[in-house]
Amino acid sequence: MDRLAALQRAPEHFVDTAAMARLPAKARRGFLRQAFAAALAGGAATLARAEDGEAAILEPTEAARGLGAPVALDGYGKPSKYEATLQRRQSPGLTQTRQASVSFCPLQGLFGIVTPSGLHFERHHQGWWDIDPRTHRLMLNGSDARMLKRPLVLTVDELMRLPSVSRFHFIECGANTAMEWGNVAVPTVQYTHGMLSCSEFTGVPLITLLEMAGADLQRGRFVLAEGGDGSGMTRTIPMELVRSGEVLVAYGQNGEMLRPENGYPLRLVVPGVQGVSWVKWLRRIELGDAPYGTKDETLHYVDLMPDGRQRQYSSIQEVKSVITTPSGGQVLLQRGFHAISGLAWSGRGKIARVDVSVDGGRNWREARLQTPVMSKCLTRFSADWVW
Amino acid sequence: MDRLAALQRAPEHFVDTAAMARLPAKARRGFLRQAFAAALAGGAATLARAEDGEAAILEPTEAARGLGAPVALDGYGKPSKYEATLQRRQSPGLTQTRQASVSFCPLQGLFGIVTPSGLHFERHHQGWWDIDPRTHRLMLNGSDARMLKRPLVLTVDELMRLPSVSRFHFIECGANTAMEWGNVAVPTVQYTHGMLSCSEFTGVPLITLLEMAGADLQRGRFVLAEGGDGSGMTRTIPMELVRSGEVLVAYGQNGEMLRPENGYPLRLVVPGVQGVSWVKWLRRIELGDAPYGTKDETLHYVDLMPDGRQRQYSSIQEVKSVITTPSGGQVLLQRGFHAISGLAWSGRGKIARVDVSVDGGRNWREARLQTPVMSKCLTRFSADWVW
Repeated sequence: MDRLAALQRAPEHFVDTAAMARLPAKARRGFLRQAFAAALAGGAATLARAEDGEAAILEPTEAARGLGAPVALDGYGKPSKYEATLQRRQSPGLTQTRQASVSFCPLQGLFGIVTPSGLHFERHHQGWWDIDPRTHRLMLNGSDARMLKRPLVLTVDELMRLPSVSRFHFIECGANTAMEWGNVAVPTVQYTHGMLSCSEFTGVPLITLLEMAGADLQRGRFVLAEGGDGSGMTRTIPMELVRSGEVLVAYGQNGEMLRPENGYPLRLVVPGVQGVSWVKWLRRIELGDAPYGTKDETLHYVDLMPDGRQRQYSSIQEVKSVITTPSGGQVLLQRGFHAISGLAWSGRGKIARVDVSVDGGRNWREARLQTPVMSKCLTRFSADWVW
Repeated sequence: MDRLAALQRAPEHFVDTAAMARLPAKARRGFLRQAFAAALAGGAATLARAEDGEAAILEPTEAARGLGAPVALDGYGKPSKYEATLQRRQSPGLTQTRQASVSFCPLQGLFGIVTPSGLHFERHHQGWWDIDPRTHRLMLNGSDARMLKRPLVLTVDELMRLPSVSRFHFIECGANTAMEWGNVAVPTVQYTHGMLSCSEFTGVPLITLLEMAGADLQRGRFVLAEGGDGSGMTRTIPMELVRSGEVLVAYGQNGEMLRPENGYPLRLVVPGVQGVSWVKWLRRIELGDAPYGTKDETLHYVDLMPDGRQRQYSSIQEVKSVITTPSGGQVLLQRGFHAISGLAWSGRGKIARVDVSVDGGRNWREARLQTPVMSKCLTRFSADWVW
């Protein structure tokens, strides 16, 4: 018996019309609707019974007959070969060069809240580097001699000796979800919402470093964060965020060192704030008394406001949510029960509640939230749906 | 200026005496002790001042001068080449064959609570397989015809349509930490405690499937879980655990599908219970009214009790903790401030408190716990230490 899937997975790149044409004219419908109806009603069995039999369960498989692969075949393992199409991908035509570009996270294929580091979205301005941590340095200085009494240059090892914290946070590019403001432009949630990822970050609170360096916390109202790549990436961070203890000089991501594409060996973590402020390959922090007016906060990364003016220094990512399955490009092959699953997040704190509509917004019902709900972190929601 | 690290990382395999001999006779001491003293006292600067200068910070680096690598160079990214020695590894001589063996998780190099899936420990009995999810089946049956009214065979796609949950849990091999009961046998925390990992698992509560299948929850007191590899791995799970909703038929791990070495496409998740019950490549669940007395709960995976008898059906992993840094094989190159970091976990619920001693148990102080503290999950603790 050849079983049909209930849901055809999203094409992992753009819609493949040939694959669409191969869909069965009439899919085997209703399996789980019946299953659920039967289970709920305690009614008569209408399910595929085990005794009906199919070779896949009745005959010993290759895995049951042989000797498998040894332990530590991969000292650092990889996903199944059957998951090879789940990749972070460029949106063709979006940018002229792949060094100043974006790769999008395949949200349609992910579960829970942790983004596998191998699928973390990328946004580079002059390409990424795998920087030798033995030669990397982080400098802390003041805008004048009194602002920071003891300017510091730290090695990565020195930084890693200091008291650290680990926290789960989302990171989102300021341009995320802007693709569809004008019209439906891209076919899947990977491209509409995929400049979004979530990790457990580990690092040293920046306030600890500033206090070590003898910062003047009365006069110091802003820090400048500078990256080590050639793009001259610099951003102003208000000291209110730093003083909260939330801003980290991070070296860890999902239990291991940051990935090179995510700023190895050091990046700034600025929870709730757009990704461009999470400066990668972090090399310098300067404490000053005024915003720095850098190109990536006054000319780029500005937002058009309703009155036609441009807002500079965009910062907090406001609350958003998206259904990741079923979602664009996926095809429901059966009526009946489907689990709706999605993500909600806010740069201002915890998600309190998510409502879901399956009729274009006429009726709404409350979704279940996966716990623990954490501040400035993705929250997975789910809802049951009978189509 | 060539800076010395404060802490020499653990040799990632066994202790390299040649590397030990190359240690500087007198390491550059006290950097952070002074730093902390100065910061705390607001005293005179004794730190490495930025203006002292070193080429690594004063001269433009290669990364600052050139064009880096493009986005999506790796559709599924990898760690930095500088982290290549951090691997899960076999303990040489522990087993005769690598298909019935263990690879240990490098806890000494990890942060926070999430274990990168590529470094998840392995314990196989007949090797691992990368099973095609399109042909994999999960069967649910009863020990007699009345135990399960509607025996079921599910495809992976059918299972993935059902309401799922995602939860963070540790998994620990029942043999973990037994290596040193007799004497100090292995040199690093990777080998003393590394049959331990922690992930966000996603799956369908087993109780949902049993209810769908019309289980007799009065008579049904145990389930048998059977794996799809050739080892005949079968374990008895008490229905009290299943009824709690905690036992999952999982397909997701850290946001993506399970890794092949961890049971792709389906494994049982039995929070708090030793890893052998988290049956990989799960193919069958049987509901019965008595324990099944399988080889891996009555002959293997039994525990010697103080009175000399063997305990069968070992289940809950009791509370444990370990300092992961500084730890075996690591060498402290400087006196002064060091951050102590470690893990605590219990198969019975949440960690309430961790105390740390740095003088062989004479004095104890309370460690900080990383939040959120989750049930049957690793908890990261930390403490400050001036040596």
